[in-house]
Amino acid sequence: MTTAEDRLAPVLDRIDADLPAALERLMALLRIPSISTDPAYDGACRKAADWLVDDLAGIGFQAERRDTTGHPMVVGHAPGDGRHLLFYGHYDVQPVDPLALWSRDPFDPAVEETAAGKVIRGRGAADDKGQLMTFVEACRAWHAVHGTLPGRLSILFEGEEESGSPSLVPFMKDNADELRADLALICDTGMFDRQTPAITTMLRGLVGEEVVITGPDKDLHSGMFGGAAMNPIRVLTRILASLHDDDGRVTLPGFYDGVPELSDELKAQWEGLGFDEKAFLGGVGLSEPAGERGRSALEMLWSRPTCEFNGIGGGYQGEGFKTVLPSHARAKVSFRLVGDQEPHHVRAAFRAHVGAYLPPDFDVEFHEHGASPASRMAIDDPAFEAARQALSNEWPREAAFVGSGGSIPIAGYFKSILGMDSLLIGFGRDDDQIHSPNEKYDLEAFHKGMRSWARVLARLAGPE
Amino acid sequence: MTTAEDRLAPVLDRIDADLPAALERLMALLRIPSISTDPAYDGACRKAADWLVDDLAGIGFQAERRDTTGHPMVVGHAPGDGRHLLFYGHYDVQPVDPLALWSRDPFDPAVEETAAGKVIRGRGAADDKGQLMTFVEACRAWHAVHGTLPGRLSILFEGEEESGSPSLVPFMKDNADELRADLALICDTGMFDRQTPAITTMLRGLVGEEVVITGPDKDLHSGMFGGAAMNPIRVLTRILASLHDDDGRVTLPGFYDGVPELSDELKAQWEGLGFDEKAFLGGVGLSEPAGERGRSALEMLWSRPTCEFNGIGGGYQGEGFKTVLPSHARAKVSFRLVGDQEPHHVRAAFRAHVGAYLPPDFDVEFHEHGASPASRMAIDDPAFEAARQALSNEWPREAAFVGSGGSIPIAGYFKSILGMDSLLIGFGRDDDQIHSPNEKYDLEAFHKGMRSWARVLARLAGPE
Repeated sequence: MTTAEDRLAPVLDRIDADLPAALERLMALLRIPSISTDPAYDGACRKAADWLVDDLAGIGFQAERRDTTGHPMVVGHAPGDGRHLLFYGHYDVQPVDPLALWSRDPFDPAVEETAAGKVIRGRGAADDKGQLMTFVEACRAWHAVHGTLPGRLSILFEGEEESGSPSLVPFMKDNADELRADLALICDTGMFDRQTPAITTMLRGLVGEEVVITGPDKDLHSGMFGGAAMNPIRVLTRILASLHDDDGRVTLPGFYDGVPELSDELKAQWEGLGFDEKAFLGGVGLSEPAGERGRSALEMLWSRPTCEFNGIGGGYQGEGFKTVLPSHARAKVSFRLVGDQEPHHVRAAFRAHVGAYLPPDFDVEFHEHGASPASRMAIDDPAFEAARQALSNEWPREAAFVGSGGSIPIAGYFKSILGMDSLLIGFGRDDDQIHSPNEKYDLEAFHKGMRSWARVLARLAGPE
Repeated sequence: MTTAEDRLAPVLDRIDADLPAALERLMALLRIPSISTDPAYDGACRKAADWLVDDLAGIGFQAERRDTTGHPMVVGHAPGDGRHLLFYGHYDVQPVDPLALWSRDPFDPAVEETAAGKVIRGRGAADDKGQLMTFVEACRAWHAVHGTLPGRLSILFEGEEESGSPSLVPFMKDNADELRADLALICDTGMFDRQTPAITTMLRGLVGEEVVITGPDKDLHSGMFGGAAMNPIRVLTRILASLHDDDGRVTLPGFYDGVPELSDELKAQWEGLGFDEKAFLGGVGLSEPAGERGRSALEMLWSRPTCEFNGIGGGYQGEGFKTVLPSHARAKVSFRLVGDQEPHHVRAAFRAHVGAYLPPDFDVEFHEHGASPASRMAIDDPAFEAARQALSNEWPREAAFVGSGGSIPIAGYFKSILGMDSLLIGFGRDDDQIHSPNEKYDLEAFHKGMRSWARVLARLAGPE
C-alpha cells in the first residue's frame, strides 16, 4: 500500500517541472480584466469564468458556469473517498485606478526581476487569481501523475468578491446540498512573513456603507450664497470627523459591544511572532500608528474594529478652481468588525449618527455595500494541525495560526449557511500591493504555493 | 445744440428694433466653449477673443487681441471728448459639469419659454457673455444712429475671470497708461430683484486655496492596514470640520481682524429693501440659514466673511465599493473677505491650521488659486448718482446702492493699480444659475440691459 509520502513526491516533482507552463496559464487568466464592481467589465467577468470552467474540465473536474443575477459562479466536482473538501477562490479583481501610478498595463502581466526576486506583476496576480491557481495547479499535477485527483474535491469560484458578493448567499442557499463539504479550503490570505506560512483562524467582518447628503437642490455660486446656504461638504466633514475621538476610538454608541479583549495567552503568542511595527508602517511611508491609543499595531489589525473612509467626493474636483457651493457630498465608509459585533447594529448606529448631524432641510441617502460578521475557526479539528504540519514541511519556518485584518465574508457564510469551518491558507505577502497600483505576486509564492497545496492535499484528501 | 435726451431716444428705438439681430450675435458668442480653467478649451478661449475683436472693430473701436501667457485680452479704444470710460467684461465661462443635469447642450444655446418669461439658456448666457454684450450692443446702436460712439470709450475683456485671472495684474501693470480712465464700468453683477436695478458698491474679496495631503505613499488595502495606518480622508475631514465653530464662525486665529460692523444707517437701509430670506433659501430647496448665529442672511452675504468648501476628493469614488485606504485626500477651500481683511494673512492662517492638524509623518501641498481684498466704492463721485438716475428711468423701481456676496477682483485692481473707481451695473438675477447647470439670462435682462447702458452712456459719456 502506498503512503501519503509516496503519492506526494512525484507530484512535487511534476509541479517543479511544469512551472513555466503553469505561469503561462496564470498569465492568460490575468489578461482578462474581470473588474466586478464596474458594469463595463461584465463581459470580461464572464470570460474569466468560462476560462476556469474549461481549465477545470481538463484536469478531472466536472465543471460548469452557473449564472446568477450578477457575475457567474464556477462550480466543479470530482468524486472520491474520504474527507470532502471544497476549495474556494474568486476570479474577479479590484478596479485599477489610479492608472497613472502603474508601471505597466495592469492587464498585460509579466514576470519582472526585482531586488527581492522575481514577481508576477498585474492586477489580480495576488488577489486572487494567482492564489486560486496555486490550488488548481496542484490538482493538475496530481491528476497528471496519478490519473485521478487525490480524493473527493469540489470547487467554488465566485466573481463578485471585490464588490460585496451580492449573489453568493442566495447561491449557497439554493445549492447548499451540493456545496456542503467536510471542510472548506480558501486561498485568499497571506503568509505571516517571507519564511513563515500562516493559517488564518480569526477574520474581521465588514460593513460597507455609502452616504450621499443633499442640501441645496442645485449647485450654487459661493459668492451669491456662501455664508447663507449650508454647504453639504461642511456637513459631511463634521459627520465624518466626529466618528473618531481623540484617542482613536470610534464614537458610535454601542460600537464596542461584542468586542472581546484578547486573552493573555493569545497576546503573548502574537508578541512572540516578532511583528515589526516600525517596518510595517515604514514600508508605506508612515511612522506613527493610527489606532486606538495604547494598543499595538498587530492588535489593531487582527483583533480591533475600525471605521475607515474609503472614498469622499463633492463639489468641483477638476483642474483649477470653481467657486461652487455644491448640492451634494458623498462618502464611502467601512467598518471592520471583530468578535460578536453585529453588522446590522453598526450600520444602524452609523445612520443614526449621520441623522443627528444633518440639518433639518437636508436629505440623505444610504447605499448598503455588504455586511458580514467577524469569524473564528474551530482549530481543535485535527485537520488544522495536519495542514499546519504540511505547510511547515514546505517552508523554512513553522506555520502559525494568525488573525487577519481583512474580511473574508465567505468564511462566515460557509459556517453559517453550510455549517463548515474553513482552512484559510494563502501565500500573499504584505508588499503585494493588492487593491493598489502595481499589484504583484512573488514567483516563489506561486511555485511554493502549488507545492504547499499538494502537501496539504496529501494529508487531508482521500481515504484516511 | 442737442441734449443728452435728444441723443438717447433714437438709440433706444434702434436697440428695440435690432433685438433679434443682437440675440443672434450673442448666440454665436455663447456657442464658443471658452472654459478658461480647463486647458482643453484653450483654442475656444482664443476664438472667443477673436470674435470679440472682430465685433468691436465693426462698431467704431480700434480693437485688438493682446496675447498673454494665459488666455488673451481684448482691448478696444474709441477716441472722444469728456469723461474717459473703461468698460470691463470677461468672455470666459465656468466648467459645465455635472453635464447630466443640463436640460440641453450648454454650448448649443436657445431662447426658451418659461413661466417667468423668455430666457436665453446656455453656459455664459448670464456670466458674463450676455452681460458684456449688453454694453457692446448699446455702443453698436449708438454708432449706428449717430455715426460715432458717445464719447471717449475703452474696452477691456479678459478670458481668465473664472480661473483666478493670473494674467490680469501683470497686463494692467504693463499697460497702465493705456488702460487708465476716469471711471470703470463693469457688467458682471445682478439686479436687486426683478424690478429694482442695483449699483454694487461693496464687494467681498476672495482667497482660493487647494490643499492636498498625503499619508501612506500608496493606496492601501483597508483590511491589511485599516486601524494601524492613518487615513488621509480622516485627517482632512478633521481639518475642515474644525474651521467653523458651533455658532458658524470661522475659527482661524485673527480671521475677523479688519471686519467692520455695519453702520446702523446701512443696516436700516438694507432692512428697507425687504429682502425675503425665506424665499431666497426656499428657492434652492433650503429653509435654515447657515451663517453666523444672530446675523441676517443679507448681512451674511454682503458684509460678513465666509469659509466655504468648493470641492473635496479622495479614495474610490466610482461605482460600487472599494476597501481602499487612500494615499491622498484633497480639498478646494475659499474664503470670502470683507472690509480690510488681508488675503495673505487669511491664507497663512489657513495653512497654519492645516499644519497643526497634520500627523508628523504626513505631507501637505498647497496650491494658490487667487487672492483679492474686498472693495468699496467712493459713491460721493456724482457719476454714481447720475448712473443711479439713468437706471431708475429704465426700470419700474428706483435703483439701489447694494453690497455683493461675490468677489469681482477686477474692481479692486482698477482701484489699486489704475486708481479708478468702478461703476458695477449688471442685470443678472438670483435664479440665473450661473456656475451651475442650466445657466440662463432673461431675455428682458438682455434687452433692458442694452437700453440701460444707452441711458448711462447718455449721462456719463462725451462732453458735459
